[in-house]
Order: sequence, then C-alpha cells, then structure tokens
Amino acid sequence: MKKSLVKELEKRLGKSSVLIDEGDRALFSYDAAYGEKVLPDIVVFPENKDDLQFVINLMSENEIPIITRGAGTNLSGGTVPVSGGCVLVTTKMNRILEINEKDLYAVVEAGVVTKQLADKVEEYGLFYPPDPGSMNISTIGGNVAENAGGLRGLKYGVTKDYVMGVKLFDMAGNEVIGGGKTVKLVTGFNIPGLMISSEGMLGIMYEVILKLVPKPATSKSMLVEYSSVIDACNTVSEIIASKILPSTLELMDNFTINAVEESEKIGLPVKADALLLIEVDGHPAVVEDEFIMVKKICEKNKGNVKVADNNEERDKLWTARRKALSCLARLKPTLILEDATVPRSKIPDMMKAIKEIASKYNITIGTFGHAGDGNLHPTILTDKRDEDEFRRVEKAIDEIFEKALLFGGTLSGEHGVGLLKAKYMEMEVGKGTLNFMKNLKMGVDSKNLLNPHKMGL
Amino acid sequence: MKKSLVKELEKRLGKSSVLIDEGDRALFSYDAAYGEKVLPDIVVFPENKDDLQFVINLMSENEIPIITRGAGTNLSGGTVPVSGGCVLVTTKMNRILEINEKDLYAVVEAGVVTKQLADKVEEYGLFYPPDPGSMNISTIGGNVAENAGGLRGLKYGVTKDYVMGVKLFDMAGNEVIGGGKTVKLVTGFNIPGLMISSEGMLGIMYEVILKLVPKPATSKSMLVEYSSVIDACNTVSEIIASKILPSTLELMDNFTINAVEESEKIGLPVKADALLLIEVDGHPAVVEDEFIMVKKICEKNKGNVKVADNNEERDKLWTARRKALSCLARLKPTLILEDATVPRSKIPDMMKAIKEIASKYNITIGTFGHAGDGNLHPTILTDKRDEDEFRRVEKAIDEIFEKALLFGGTLSGEHGVGLLKAKYMEMEVGKGTLNFMKNLKMGVDSKNLLNPHKMGL
Repeated sequence: MKKSLVKELEKRLGKSSVLIDEGDRALFSYDAAYGEKVLPDIVVFPENKDDLQFVINLMSENEIPIITRGAGTNLSGGTVPVSGGCVLVTTKMNRILEINEKDLYAVVEAGVVTKQLADKVEEYGLFYPPDPGSMNISTIGGNVAENAGGLRGLKYGVTKDYVMGVKLFDMAGNEVIGGGKTVKLVTGFNIPGLMISSEGMLGIMYEVILKLVPKPATSKSMLVEYSSVIDACNTVSEIIASKILPSTLELMDNFTINAVEESEKIGLPVKADALLLIEVDGHPAVVEDEFIMVKKICEKNKGNVKVADNNEERDKLWTARRKALSCLARLKPTLILEDATVPRSKIPDMMKAIKEIASKYNITIGTFGHAGDGNLHPTILTDKRDEDEFRRVEKAIDEIFEKALLFGGTLSGEHGVGLLKAKYMEMEVGKGTLNFMKNLKMGVDSKNLLNPHKMGL
Repeated sequence: MKKSLVKELEKRLGKSSVLIDEGDRALFSYDAAYGEKVLPDIVVFPENKDDLQFVINLMSENEIPIITRGAGTNLSGGTVPVSGGCVLVTTKMNRILEINEKDLYAVVEAGVVTKQLADKVEEYGLFYPPDPGSMNISTIGGNVAENAGGLRGLKYGVTKDYVMGVKLFDMAGNEVIGGGKTVKLVTGFNIPGLMISSEGMLGIMYEVILKLVPKPATSKSMLVEYSSVIDACNTVSEIIASKILPSTLELMDNFTINAVEESEKIGLPVKADALLLIEVDGHPAVVEDEFIMVKKICEKNKGNVKVADNNEERDKLWTARRKALSCLARLKPTLILEDATVPRSKIPDMMKAIKEIASKYNITIGTFGHAGDGNLHPTILTDKRDEDEFRRVEKAIDEIFEKALLFGGTLSGEHGVGLLKAKYMEMEVGKGTLNFMKNLKMGVDSKNLLNPHKMGL
C-alpha cells in the first residue's frame, strides 16, 4: 500500500482506526472458516457515513479491492482477502439510531451487534427474532450480507424477513437508499432484497431498518430423548406436517451430546442417540394446545419428553445447544461445519445419508442443528495435516452436497458461499445463473473491487 | 414488425397465440392506470418455458423491446408499451405444478391467477395470504413483479414475504434459477428478492415457488362506524401501538361508503363519516382476546362496533370493501387511485392532509384503503378533458406525495412506479439510487430491451 494513501487514511480516520502492522493485519486474514490465509494490505475502521464514503472513494480511485467485515464470524470465508486489498471493518459504526414502538421498526448502523439490538428492543416489549449462533458478537450488517439464520427460522423466518430498508454506497460512490419505514413500499427495485446474501459484493451498507414484532406472551421449552436419531427426525417431519410451527426445533446427535456434556457438565443424557430441543411460544392458550400436540407426536415416535420447569432450566437447555459448535471444536484441530439444507420432510432421509457417508469414508461427523427448518449442521472433525483423511473428508463433503440437492435442498442454508462453497455453485444454480450474477455485479462494480473472487464470480 | 418475424412466431406458437391486428393490439395498449396509449407491434402468448425462451431470443436478436404482462391490472402503467415492441402475455403459462403439504410450499407457473392458487391451497388446509384487490384476475408473476400488497399486509405481509424461489430468462438468454424449496437458502445473490418489484425490467419469470402457511383456525370480523374519520384513524394507530396485529384493518370514508352503497345496496351506514372493517384471526382464544381489546379501543375513540354474526354477513362486509374501487370508478370519467403510504402511526396526520388538499384544490377525493399498514388509497375522481380541473388534480397529487415523504412514508405502497410515478422517483430515493438501479439494469439488459422507459430509468 502506497505510503501517501496510508497517510491520507490516518489523517482522516485517526491512527487508531488504520492498521498497517503485519501482526495486526494478520488478525483480519481469517474468519470462522478454515482455509489458506492471505493478509490484507490495510485494515480500516470508519466511524461514520462520511468517513466510509471517503474510504470507498479513495480505494475506488486507486483500484484497491475492499473486503467489508463485521465481527468476522463468517463460516464460508466470505470476509477474508484473496488478493490483498483493504479490509473495511464496520464495528465502529455501532449506534442504534431509533427504536420505534408505534410503528414497530428499528434503525441501526451496520456495525451494531445482533444481541445488543435484541436485548434493547426487549426493553420495549418488542422482539427481533433472527438469532444466528454467533449473535453475541455478529453484526447486523454481516447478518444482512449473509442472510443469517438461526434457531428461530422455522416460525419466525431469517434476517431477510426483517430487513425493511438499507442505506449503502456502491463502488462508483453513489449513495443508495432502498426501502424505508413502511410495511408496504414498492418504489423502484427491491434494493434491501438485493443486499440480502450479497456477501459484500454489491455495495457497502451503513444503515439498516429492521422490522420488529410484538414479544410473544409466553413460551414452553422441552427436551426430548430418543434411543434412535431417526425416530427424532421422524418426529420433526411429523410436527411440521401437522401444521404446528414451534419457535425452535433443534436436534443434537449422540456425538454432539457427549461433546457438550463433557465440556459443560449440565446433566445431558449421554446415552441418548439423539435429543430434540423444542420450544413453542405465543398466546398462553396456543402454547398449551401446541405443547400437548407436540408431546403426543414425540411420544408416538418413542421420545421421552421432559419440560423445563423454570427459566433457569430453560436457559440451561438453550445454552447447551448454543455451545454445541464450540464444544465440538475442542475435540480436533480442524472443524468443518456444513449447512446443506433440505425441505423439512426430507430430514430423516438426510440424516440417514449423513450417517452412511460418515461410515463410508471412515470419518467423524457430529450432527446438530435446526432440524425444524431442514437446516442440519453435519460437523466434520478432522486434522488438515492428515492428508489422507482430509481427502476422504473432501469426498464426504461433495457427497453431502449431492444428497442435499437430490432431496430438493441447497448447498447452504445460512452460512453463505464465500470461498468454501464457490466451486459447488454451478452444481446448484447452473451456468446461466452464474452469468446473470456476474453481469449484475459488473453492472454496479465494473472494476470488480468489492470482495472479489467470492461465490465463483 | 417484419413479416418474416411474425411468420416465425406464428409457426412456433400457433396463430391463436400471436396477435397482429390493430384492434387486438389496442387491447394491450392500456392497463388499469390512466395515460396515453401506444400500441404494441405484436402480442404473443407463449404456453411454456421453451416457447418463452424462443420469443425472448428472437426479440433479443432483433432488438425489439419486450413488455411482460399478466392480467394487466397494473395501476401505474407498468405493463403498457411506450415505444411499441412486443407485449408478452403470461396467462397461458397457468399451471399449478405442485402443492406440498409437508413442506408448505407451492410451485406455480407465472400466469397462474392469484385467486385460483388461494382457493386451491385452502383445499389442503393451507393459506396463501397475499390478497391484492385484483386477485380474482391478477397473476402470480405480476404479483411478484409488482410486489402486490392487499388487505392482509398488516399481519401477513405482502407478496415478497412469500416468494421462496423463481425461475426466469434474462435478455441475454441465460436461464436463471434463484432460491428454492427450503426455508433457509443463501446460495448466491438473492434473485427472488431482486425480482420483487422489478416491474418486468430485469428478467421474465416463468415459475415461482411460494411459501404457504397453516390456515388460521378461526376469525372474527367487525364493522365500526365513526362520526369523524379522524377518530377512525386514531383508532387504527392505537390498535397497532397496543401490539395487536389484526389480519385486516380497512378504512372507508363517507364518500366511499356512499359510492359503494349506491351501487351495491347492502345497508352500509351512509351517514357515517368513516367505517373501519376489522378482522382478527388465529387460535380461538387469541381471536377472543384480541376482539375484546380491539372493541375497547374502538369504543374509546367513539366507534360503534357491530360484529358479523355469520359467514354471510362477513362476506358481505369484505365484498363491500373490495368493490370500493369499481364503485368509485362509476362516478366520473377519470379515476386516479393513489397509494402513497406512511408509517402506521402517521395515518391520522395523512388523513388530515388529504382532506386539506382536496379542499385547497377544490377536487373530489374519496379515501379508502389499508389503514392498518399505513397504505391509504386517496382516489381522485375527475375528467381528464377538463383541463383546468386536471391541472389542479396534478398539483394535489404532487402535494399528497410531498406529505407522505414528510411523514417518513413512500410514493407507492403497492401499485409500483411504472410510468405514472417515474417523475417522482428522485424525490424519494435520490439521484445515487437511480444511478445504481440504472447500472443494475444495464448489467443484465445492456440494450435496455426489457420494459424500457419505466421507473424513470
């Protein structure tokens, strides 16, 4: 990076918002996904819209790629540089600008942490449902750019269902306003929709308007033990088919249960082949009715139902589930977290396929995830240095994707394409779709400076 | 249009699917909006994907614009030709391909009529909520391209909240697949989101995957009479602020009530200054609780509540509301239906502003619409041949838009931009957004052949 450029950036943003030391830059060469590391040439932290625009214009003039990054919790390598450039971190643009109780929306800067917003709106008796696993540190801007999912997708949808408006800059320096504060709005192209899962490749958001909903009056959580994971999966399909939508419907297999229990010691049933964690919420009468129906279906499928008697027990349950990933990660040097997703009725088939694939390639796969919306997380524990095993792992991943598509599903339910899934894109969407995406991107970023080399474009 | 081209089209599609007579073409020179009429050079009705691709390739090679059209119920001139070209009508691609009860989705061709789908899924105990006023004839493809709203937007959202996947061709002949059949899906750009409110300018859809939801168990409808329209508007704001979301919350002013009653003779209270039509739905206990709370708020604001005792009475109520537009249209030669939309709490302010504007310019405005989601329909009755009055009408429209934006709202909640609102776009979204939209369009349609001259691009 030219010294004059660095000087200009330091002068505008302040020295503490510009990182050039190799050690500092190394921290921004990776995210939560595995892969080769490439250092950015510079890392900047604009604090407001004007500084953001300054950075974008400077990089555009000098044809330097920008890789936008929130908290870096990305699971597909979407926020790492491939050929150097400028990592633009949004975490200093972190103000909640408005929470409107009457009209049920919030206006936030892109760097606001998901959990902070969720907690804040609760003070108003409101609810922001999207709860990605990383919500304690992930940012709203990142959630939008990746269309983050979470545990509540089944009943409440995912990030895209809550984005009413966005403000952004494109690489040509245009200030772009999409959507707004009204429930209905159709003036022009759906720019908020376009930014959803755009992975930082079409523009850099600085403000987001999010829909809020009334907080559900009550909820009931239960833990259901199974001696066969397939019975658990059948339960999931049957609950959905009976037209009940629990707010969460999560699965953990025996391997995951043991990994969590070993680390957390909270009394999970380590001999169970699988657990379902189910929560129903809403009006008390609805919760009661749905609970009775869910319990019946669980028991019919040989599940043993325990209800969380109080908030403490309930929190313990959900903490156990949220820790699954980190507990698994402790076991082996390399963890590969997949999120191939299938229509919900195909959960039992997918589970069977994963078990067969693990056995065929003699590798360790712990499976947990959002069974209720078809979004399982088969998690492969391996060591990248063991070349022989890693080749088998790669074959297993290919096969998991093939099966997901065969069942009418998708390569990625909520983790994005980034680098790790780029090579599989054509298999799901075909050449024509990739051409269309490439043309869209070139239309608004003709020099391909925004997060280049991602999604196979 | 060259004779050889017509021949080629007739040979491929059959003579009955190609219109070239002037009288026939004239029928496709207008939609439900007012404005100058320009004849298309040809009108075609492809029956399947392959024929559609054939038409697109032929037009692309010959650089002839394509204006895609469903049922032509568009209220902003979005489906009419501006400089000739080919009107491509989707109504012969009208098969419901799949209704999946287990996974709660439907796959339909773009020309399927909204009401037909809604009725069909009801047979499965399912519910497709978006219900634009024109749903008896409008097509799903048109609903997506315009992001059609309707009466249930308040609780259930609009078309965009139900689009899981789309298949389309772009003008370069790419076959593009976006989204799919899973609740979570993030492989690549959000193409279904991009097609929402794209008004036929970015691609031509032939298939849509729509989310379905379980049918609400029960509902309760009420009619509330007010001697002041402002009291009615205050009721609306207060219901929303109390965090109840009725499935519908509609308003009719005195002028509209009288227009409907005169034509339909169903016993509406013609002396009331305004009516609210409210429906709550869901679990019986929820319906009962919400009904009691809503009734209380209505009465506090001096409303006189009557409950529909049976389905017949209920249907009569909603038929009355759905007829509002056609009953108003009978009164004067030119009807201009606006849909400026404001955040819900601003409904009383907007209503006051509309009354003041009508009086200032001495014109007739009947107002009805989706008060619950901030989407009022001030409807101007005039005669375009009366030049003096029409000048005042145009000034009044400008002022309605200015007020809507001042209150944090938008030019259009559900009718789209098309031709009629093109000149106002910059006022709402700014020059940068228009540049961005233009670049997006040029990226995928470099010769500007898809519905050109619309949205001010």
